[in-house]
Amino acid sequence: MPAEAINTKDYLEKNKRLVEELLDRYLPSEAEEPQSLHAAMRYSVLAGGKRLRPILAFAAYEYCHGDLNGQDLPIHYAMAALEMVHTYSLIHDDLPCMDDDDLRRGILTCHKKFDEAVAVLAGDALHDIAFKLMAMTDSIQAVKELAQALGTKGMIGGQMADVEAEGKDITEQEITLIHQRKTGALIRCSVRIGAILANADQTLLNKLTIFGEKIGLAFQIIDDILDIEGDQKLLGKKVGSDSKKVKATYPKVMGLKQAHSKADQLIQDAVDVFDDYNDNIFKNLAQYIAQRKR
Amino acid sequence: MPAEAINTKDYLEKNKRLVEELLDRYLPSEAEEPQSLHAAMRYSVLAGGKRLRPILAFAAYEYCHGDLNGQDLPIHYAMAALEMVHTYSLIHDDLPCMDDDDLRRGILTCHKKFDEAVAVLAGDALHDIAFKLMAMTDSIQAVKELAQALGTKGMIGGQMADVEAEGKDITEQEITLIHQRKTGALIRCSVRIGAILANADQTLLNKLTIFGEKIGLAFQIIDDILDIEGDQKLLGKKVGSDSKKVKATYPKVMGLKQAHSKADQLIQDAVDVFDDYNDNIFKNLAQYIAQRKR
Repeated sequence: MPAEAINTKDYLEKNKRLVEELLDRYLPSEAEEPQSLHAAMRYSVLAGGKRLRPILAFAAYEYCHGDLNGQDLPIHYAMAALEMVHTYSLIHDDLPCMDDDDLRRGILTCHKKFDEAVAVLAGDALHDIAFKLMAMTDSIQAVKELAQALGTKGMIGGQMADVEAEGKDITEQEITLIHQRKTGALIRCSVRIGAILANADQTLLNKLTIFGEKIGLAFQIIDDILDIEGDQKLLGKKVGSDSKKVKATYPKVMGLKQAHSKADQLIQDAVDVFDDYNDNIFKNLAQYIAQRKR
Repeated sequence: MPAEAINTKDYLEKNKRLVEELLDRYLPSEAEEPQSLHAAMRYSVLAGGKRLRPILAFAAYEYCHGDLNGQDLPIHYAMAALEMVHTYSLIHDDLPCMDDDDLRRGILTCHKKFDEAVAVLAGDALHDIAFKLMAMTDSIQAVKELAQALGTKGMIGGQMADVEAEGKDITEQEITLIHQRKTGALIRCSVRIGAILANADQTLLNKLTIFGEKIGLAFQIIDDILDIEGDQKLLGKKVGSDSKKVKATYPKVMGLKQAHSKADQLIQDAVDVFDDYNDNIFKNLAQYIAQRKR
């Protein structure tokens, strides 16, 4: 397929709509008690966002020729689960005892809109419902992948290291490990779960895993850069908050120019994974991540 | 087997030791980074406690003739998972924005010993590792049971309702629903998972489910009573804290005497589930719950 045949913007828009539909369908209704908890969960999950993780899972699934006939397929449960896990991590990360942020996706953070108790529990409930949905895929492997990506050697470990690194001088190796865990692990896992649910062979799974690792790290470096160069309106959160909090970031450790080169290199490495193809959606998704403004 | 043949105290002691061994083995080492997170997880999980949930799972598994040959059996992973989930819920429940407790199991609560950020993340990490361990049973049904018990119609829903009921007049029906969710759901699920991992037939599973429901509710009513009549030293937490926080409890809703009768009735109902047997460990466990002082 020639490069121009895949319109990345249309692809992203179409699949974002699918993700929003799935989230709305799989989240408990606000009319059902406990209403306040369901309201908080829906508020944070349905506040928008790029929906990158479920879109990556879907792209991997499609790429590996997963079956797309029918509603409520295992891949659909997995997509919703990945976005819910991401939202849970944001809610807890925004808490006063963590990053203490007031704005997220252009609206008040969960604990600001509701209160801290509700935010803690809404995060916990989303963490749980994500495993419920992932188990509904009936793939124990997918559940294991998710648990691994979220654990102390994954997302939570990265968040802990991120908090601990505040105000400290750290090395490139250390910031890389933090970013790989904090953000990279879930992005890598999203791509892998899509492939696993499509019964991809090991060669293809390995290839997609490397792709996921490269874009996962690139994504967080670009996030660091956007906190300096980004537009607050587009981002939906305050810029400059990393340096205010003396956060460990790539630009802080290596300088802004080097951070740009590092991100570019990772995107190129990700694209190169597919060098035996003229073009595919993954190359476009990598480019999209490289050029994102929010 | 005659009643005296099963020594409940010995049974509990022996299986408590097994649970402690499993927890120690399956928790990440403090020597491994992120050390602070692993230290907090181990601190809270290994602080003692009755280990009731894993013991109930084990009892159900044994009762349903589950295979006990070998180390690191599915039931062992499940037992550790259940206790880790319970500890995660205690850590988050003790946070300043929730119950704001300083003491738990006779030692400082996690956020007091470490800090709030560590406590939020340690709870999250235990929540996650519990699903990792449950997935290691290779029983997708066990994962589903756990996710169901922890969700907004289970433990988290109960905690939310508990927070919201503070200072309010509620009915017996409402407090029953709160207790069934907050405490009952995980106890019920522990018994069920033991039976499921032993491939129990539906009749036996249903029987054990009713048993789990009865003792789960009784357990929380007795918890309410102990907060009034209990010995702070034995309990390892402050007594009188429920009334100080204007918590909704059974004694508050029905009076202390009625709360006692209700608990007694539930224990009797639980024992009656096994009326076609002369004696078994479940009758003894129900009696143990009825008589507990901590």
